[in-house]
Amino acid sequence: MTTDQDRKRPGRPPGTSDTRDRILVAARDLFARNGFDNTSIRAIGAAADVDPALVHHYFGTKTQLFADAIHIPIDPMTVIGPLREVPVDQIGHVLPSLLLPIWDSELGKGFIATMRSMLAGSDVSMVRSFLQDVITAEVGARVDDPPGSGPVRVQFVASQLVGIVMARYILELEPFKSLPVDQIVETIAPNLQRYLTGDLPGLV
Amino acid sequence: MTTDQDRKRPGRPPGTSDTRDRILVAARDLFARNGFDNTSIRAIGAAADVDPALVHHYFGTKTQLFADAIHIPIDPMTVIGPLREVPVDQIGHVLPSLLLPIWDSELGKGFIATMRSMLAGSDVSMVRSFLQDVITAEVGARVDDPPGSGPVRVQFVASQLVGIVMARYILELEPFKSLPVDQIVETIAPNLQRYLTGDLPGLV
Repeated sequence: MTTDQDRKRPGRPPGTSDTRDRILVAARDLFARNGFDNTSIRAIGAAADVDPALVHHYFGTKTQLFADAIHIPIDPMTVIGPLREVPVDQIGHVLPSLLLPIWDSELGKGFIATMRSMLAGSDVSMVRSFLQDVITAEVGARVDDPPGSGPVRVQFVASQLVGIVMARYILELEPFKSLPVDQIVETIAPNLQRYLTGDLPGLV
Repeated sequence: MTTDQDRKRPGRPPGTSDTRDRILVAARDLFARNGFDNTSIRAIGAAADVDPALVHHYFGTKTQLFADAIHIPIDPMTVIGPLREVPVDQIGHVLPSLLLPIWDSELGKGFIATMRSMLAGSDVSMVRSFLQDVITAEVGARVDDPPGSGPVRVQFVASQLVGIVMARYILELEPFKSLPVDQIVETIAPNLQRYLTGDLPGLV
């Protein structure tokens, strides 16, 4: 993770902070307009009038740049990486075990604030794109959706997880807001797992 | 339901539209500050400097006034009333069957827009109050929560339902947004029912 100190250390040549900002502006614009999948580091570099290598230099991977662009203070791969190693019949449990401690942490506050402001504005396209392109590609590809239905299983999972964010951090329902992470994880895990791998007669 | 025509018919004495607005402003203020339960029609009348009978005359019951205050275009009793007749082991199915057609309708659009603007501002207190005081009182009272835990079961239900609103109407995930109501109801009903009456080891 890059901190403000790293970014503005005195030894850097003048103008780099401008460059960095220009890349971020270009990235936000392209992610919002074209989605995560259809936006390349090359296109962002072109829009910001810098070499693609410089985009990588400042921001790392595309998911890291995306996270920075929407003010998620951690790399989504922190969650996605471990999930790749998890058998599909345990994702319902592991996914909230990874997410809730992050959301509960200081880092998570920025994410919640950003999500809230996006929901307010017309900026939902980035949240949508992230859910559709990143989460669907990573988790949705590993479950069996009904033929021709699209990634519905993982979208039901997303609906429950977004609802947890709303109830715990935005609506701050009590006692929900104060429940230990473990209790929430244990309570929702079987439901998430059912969405992922259970029998869903309504969808056949 | 009262329409604009009813409210502003020519025969009415001047000043009534002012009175009505004053009541709404007072109601919003008190509901937001003190919650639904702790706000009486009498207190709203006092704050608006009108007789409580006039509040009833313009708006009907307290839930109807609350719905008007937060721009819900239907009386919440449309949902709550039928639920009272439903055996508790069917609420997981009946609740979304009642809610989704409303949310999908033209009337629902105003509700979604209001929810969104509340989430953006600092106005979540009204949504929270409604979920905590009305839904918890109506449905939460009928399920067995773990001793001393508060109304957690119904709050897990709320988290899933709020998540459906987010995924379908605000994030507009595809194909989730386009799924027939029945498919969503059948898919989430067993999960909602588990939250209400199932074995939840995480919460014991």
